[in-house]
Amino acid sequence: MTEISFSFSLEFTVRDYECDLQGVVNNANYQHYLEHARHEFLLSKGISFSGLHEEGIDLIVTKVEIDYKYPLRSRDRFVVRLNAERSGNVRLLFLQEIYRIPDEKLIAGARVTGVATRNGRPVSPSAIAERLGLKQI
Amino acid sequence: MTEISFSFSLEFTVRDYECDLQGVVNNANYQHYLEHARHEFLLSKGISFSGLHEEGIDLIVTKVEIDYKYPLRSRDRFVVRLNAERSGNVRLLFLQEIYRIPDEKLIAGARVTGVATRNGRPVSPSAIAERLGLKQI
Amino acid sequence: MTEISFSFSLEFTVRDYECDLQGVVNNANYQHYLEHARHEFLLSKGISFSGLHEEGIDLIVTKVEIDYKYPLRSRDRFVVRLNAERSGNVRLLFLQEIYRIPDEKLIAGARVTGVATRNGRPVSPSAIAERLGLKQI
Amino acid sequence: MTEISFSFSLEFTVRDYECDLQGVVNNANYQHYLEHARHEFLLSKGISFSGLHEEGIDLIVTKVEIDYKYPLRSRDRFVVRLNAERSGNVRLLFLQEIYRIPDEKLIAGARVTGVATRNGRPVSPSAIAERLGLKQI
Repeated sequence: MTEISFSFSLEFTVRDYECDLQGVVNNANYQHYLEHARHEFLLSKGISFSGLHEEGIDLIVTKVEIDYKYPLRSRDRFVVRLNAERSGNVRLLFLQEIYRIPDEKLIAGARVTGVATRNGRPVSPSAIAERLGLKQI
Repeated sequence: MTEISFSFSLEFTVRDYECDLQGVVNNANYQHYLEHARHEFLLSKGISFSGLHEEGIDLIVTKVEIDYKYPLRSRDRFVVRLNAERSGNVRLLFLQEIYRIPDEKLIAGARVTGVATRNGRPVSPSAIAERLGLKQI
Repeated sequence: MTEISFSFSLEFTVRDYECDLQGVVNNANYQHYLEHARHEFLLSKGISFSGLHEEGIDLIVTKVEIDYKYPLRSRDRFVVRLNAERSGNVRLLFLQEIYRIPDEKLIAGARVTGVATRNGRPVSPSAIAERLGLKQI
Repeated sequence: MTEISFSFSLEFTVRDYECDLQGVVNNANYQHYLEHARHEFLLSKGISFSGLHEEGIDLIVTKVEIDYKYPLRSRDRFVVRLNAERSGNVRLLFLQEIYRIPDEKLIAGARVTGVATRNGRPVSPSAIAERLGLKQI
């Protein structure tokens, strides 16, 4: 495990219905874990994904890259850690890693790019980025 | 198989991600199948579940009863058949059965009760029931 | 709220991906919550759903009845409470209720019937029932 | 739309439960669509994902990259198209694109890398690749 410092982390337990016929968590469910961790991170900064939607602003994912290193199984506990940064004028970039608990085995690494939109058009995420304490890079 | 006559049917193929670690379709996914068949039935009568939501009317399920008779597995094909009726002043009742294809093995039977709501309060489903060709019982 | 005493409870937070286009938790996801609570209850008694499967014994649901009283939404916290009992020679019956936190609003009530099977045939659940501390009724 | 020639395609209809509170298909569900198209492609070549699992061989995804271009909504029909190739000695690479029907709007593009494993260790996918008609590149 590289010694990255993460700004947010959230613990989960695998639920049996998340496993597929191979007996491991289905690949798509990692996106669920990653999404839930991002939304809880936003909430921890006072930003509600569903609240923004009700105000007409939608945070949407434009690109996802996930490296699957090792599968999660029934009864596993794990933590999703994340860092967020700005990328250019309109994009937010989330670097997320999933580690099994308690042995810290790296399960998956992900880069998730998102934008804020209003009526389907990108808008500046500056207000959001500021609340998240992100500087542009 | 009892010789019930159904007013609508929709064919599906099991998708592998719908199976869980027991190697069979997870129980919750039958509700997905039942819901999708109901919504396609409504569409076949010119009623859009999502369109109604945009107009401020939500069709919601108030009660589900499902008897699981035999499991579906990877590669199975099946058909969801349904009948709809009115039940009292405000309720719609859907009787749905799932049969494996091509051997017509009964997989599950369900009774699903729903109501129409506006702003969270039940409204008369008469306009919908009429379009569905239902008589009150 | 009737003053039933429950033998197990598990807290959850709604995850945004569990909500559908109506902005509320999709009906099928309540089955996921109910299932996860049952499996954690079993684990709390030393019985692993996935471990049993690996030993050739499958706990399967034969009947589900759910009354949906009030919808869960994004950011809601809730608790699933349950009681288990034996029903006849081969069935286990789970009575489960979902309450929103912290206002204890009743969200849904469920009766879930299950059996233990080996190679697709029901076997006596006595060993399991004993570990769960259930008496026959 | 670039004029790529695809070796397999599969049509779908959006199911309402696949949409989330933003009223569009949730990001994770695109992985479900992509997976189901891959498995049906394999089946069209006589290879069963679940059958391989029962024989002790698991096809697993090691990397997913998805570009989300435009969202799918309730009632949309779409097609998933794919090409497969070998990549090095052990990897299979699936290039997949999702287009809305009938206007051929590009919805998403994906690169999915997989390997064949036995007891968790990569094995040569040559037998599979041959049946799929893939040459090494």
